[in-house]
Amino acid sequence: MIKSVLYLAVGAVLLTGCAAVHETKHTDEHGAALTCAKKPAQVLRHVVLFKFKDDATPEQIRKVENAFAALPSKVDTIYDFEWGTDVSVENLQQGFTHCFVVSFRSEADRAKYLPHPAHKEFGQILGPHLDKVLVIDYWTQN
Amino acid sequence: MIKSVLYLAVGAVLLTGCAAVHETKHTDEHGAALTCAKKPAQVLRHVVLFKFKDDATPEQIRKVENAFAALPSKVDTIYDFEWGTDVSVENLQQGFTHCFVVSFRSEADRAKYLPHPAHKEFGQILGPHLDKVLVIDYWTQN
Repeated sequence: MIKSVLYLAVGAVLLTGCAAVHETKHTDEHGAALTCAKKPAQVLRHVVLFKFKDDATPEQIRKVENAFAALPSKVDTIYDFEWGTDVSVENLQQGFTHCFVVSFRSEADRAKYLPHPAHKEFGQILGPHLDKVLVIDYWTQN
Repeated sequence: MIKSVLYLAVGAVLLTGCAAVHETKHTDEHGAALTCAKKPAQVLRHVVLFKFKDDATPEQIRKVENAFAALPSKVDTIYDFEWGTDVSVENLQQGFTHCFVVSFRSEADRAKYLPHPAHKEFGQILGPHLDKVLVIDYWTQN
């Protein structure tokens, strides 16, 4: 029993550590701004591409972008998030215009994100305007 | 004439600054390892997805992976590089198995990468084994 409580306590401490903010601001010896991170060796990237329907208006697309960008504030297992719109010059984007990259520290964290109510709610906003979607996930290597 | 030399000198200093290593290693007050970077506000991501031909052998695919991963050592306008193989669980990867992300600090840097001899040489290694490719570039937003 005491052993179980100990394991729970250690687990709680570890979890708190993992949930800590992973970037801190510092300055170098010349006073330049530095962003410092305790980088995990590998991160699980979740890359999501969208092509919207031809009749989707700029306002409807903006609503989807904002709703996706709001997910990191709603799903605490998201480790990092970025997105942008296509500016490629090789004409190999196959109609996709948007790329969102959601990063996780573990498959368990991704498993909490995918069925999360906030993610499902986002799907409701996206669905009516989506023509096609592509998703590929990978563990980062250099 | 003196003005031109001055411009050249200032340009050289700026270039040297841009070419400097962008990550440094530090330790925090508890001795934990920190990776610190002078992060640019935005980075230009160049996301490349591959599906290999069914008859491509693991050795041939490994050769392509290694050749791509060698590009950052050959093209000095590459700011960051990572890649990985598909581990997605939603079955929306449309046959793509590999994702490579090449990052640049400017469109000018990308413009030096695309026609670079090392990139062209990589294309020769890739070409015979490639079934399909998708490329999307974006400026990072959060």
